[in-house]
Amino acid sequence: MDTVSENKAFGGTQGVYRHSSDACGCDMTFGLFLPQEARDGAVPVLWYLSGLTCTHENAMVKAGAQAWAAEQGIALIFPDTSPRGDGVADDDAYDLGQGAGFYVNATQDPWAPHFRMWDYVAEELPALVAREFAIDSERQAITGHSMGGHGALTLAMNLPGRYRSVSAFAPIAHPTASDWGRKQLSAYLGGNEADWARHDATLMMRETGFDGPVLVDTGTQDQFIDLLKPEALADAVNARRQEATLRLQPGYDHSYFFVSTFMEDHVNFHAEALWA
Amino acid sequence: MDTVSENKAFGGTQGVYRHSSDACGCDMTFGLFLPQEARDGAVPVLWYLSGLTCTHENAMVKAGAQAWAAEQGIALIFPDTSPRGDGVADDDAYDLGQGAGFYVNATQDPWAPHFRMWDYVAEELPALVAREFAIDSERQAITGHSMGGHGALTLAMNLPGRYRSVSAFAPIAHPTASDWGRKQLSAYLGGNEADWARHDATLMMRETGFDGPVLVDTGTQDQFIDLLKPEALADAVNARRQEATLRLQPGYDHSYFFVSTFMEDHVNFHAEALWA
Repeated sequence: MDTVSENKAFGGTQGVYRHSSDACGCDMTFGLFLPQEARDGAVPVLWYLSGLTCTHENAMVKAGAQAWAAEQGIALIFPDTSPRGDGVADDDAYDLGQGAGFYVNATQDPWAPHFRMWDYVAEELPALVAREFAIDSERQAITGHSMGGHGALTLAMNLPGRYRSVSAFAPIAHPTASDWGRKQLSAYLGGNEADWARHDATLMMRETGFDGPVLVDTGTQDQFIDLLKPEALADAVNARRQEATLRLQPGYDHSYFFVSTFMEDHVNFHAEALWA
Repeated sequence: MDTVSENKAFGGTQGVYRHSSDACGCDMTFGLFLPQEARDGAVPVLWYLSGLTCTHENAMVKAGAQAWAAEQGIALIFPDTSPRGDGVADDDAYDLGQGAGFYVNATQDPWAPHFRMWDYVAEELPALVAREFAIDSERQAITGHSMGGHGALTLAMNLPGRYRSVSAFAPIAHPTASDWGRKQLSAYLGGNEADWARHDATLMMRETGFDGPVLVDTGTQDQFIDLLKPEALADAVNARRQEATLRLQPGYDHSYFFVSTFMEDHVNFHAEALWA
């Protein structure tokens, strides 16, 4: 693992690291914020999964999460959103291929050899950071934005016991019924829709739910709200009587200005579960 | 004036606007954050001047200032750092020409026709925002980073009564004695060093000082600290018995991670003066 950069921030360290990924078969880069408390022992961690077109960097520099994570004494991990590199398949569209991994293990060509973001985020990267940094693997939580909100919700419901809490900003909440989803799931997983179900937060909520608190914010002026389908997730949450707070935030859109506005709430929500 | 974008943020609005600038003889773009309170009347304003290579956008998306400005009910203005465009002179170096206006009125060719950032920030843009937005011109304060810290300090000391408080993050504090300064001041203003003096915070502090509180933060690990010369400004502050807080922050570098870490302190410092 190579250190790309380390900057002191909010009393802790904002690092960027590169490593050779077995899951993705290429070099992968991630951001990690460690609060001051990590000098004295392992700290809880909040995963932040980013959306379409993002790298590890966008949320790390724009979401303003470090201020609140430092206050709560928790670490933040910012993974990339796909495998990358010259040898990695890609597509001209912004919403398929590099920058658009959708947090699945692809089974279809040309994506299958590298696009294994599920294994990367669920297995390889947690093991790496637990080995290399003062991270308490018993205290994990997860959040994300848009495609990353989809990733956070589906990982949380597929891996019971892994995360103490899950939240999302403007998640793609029902991808099997959305143009943000059907295109990518068929490309990566093939045409059998039964294979898609575990990668749909609404279907997972109907089937399984989450054993812990859920927080989801979506802006009423989100320009992509018809693709996100917060109403489908709300139906499933209500049908299950899932412990959850689903908020529609008046006037907010899909941008990082929306994410940063509600970041304090989300970090504090997770901190409460992580420190319980 | 054209609206480039408006996003709801922290209860207020983060806007980006473009206008034809008389001072610079080209189109100029700036960011403006208006807190919720601006719907009901004019609010105080904090200017944020950016550093070398930046546009209006960097601090607007990376410095995390809106969270604290919203809490304090004050507006933020993020001007660009130079004139721009095909018809505007430039240089291959990152520290001269476009992105490196140094907040002066150039008198030398090829810079003189467009590089009038002093007039732009001191006169034209304040008049424009006071006319177009709910900004209280009687309550202004100013801050900035690096070259922008230089701009903030020199504007504040040259325009007594204009700003109630001034602060800076890692300012270029003594440009007439630094490679970040001598090159640019001679290019823009010519070889007569007497013309440079009002654009040097240390010389202005010796000569004039500031009628209000001053706050300056610099990181002890700032990779450019030899170019910034905080010790020169500290000497001048002490000689004058200027009301000031000069802090060296252990372990911090020159990045936005440093700026965002101390942004809450700076916004609160200005809010105290603006609401007094």
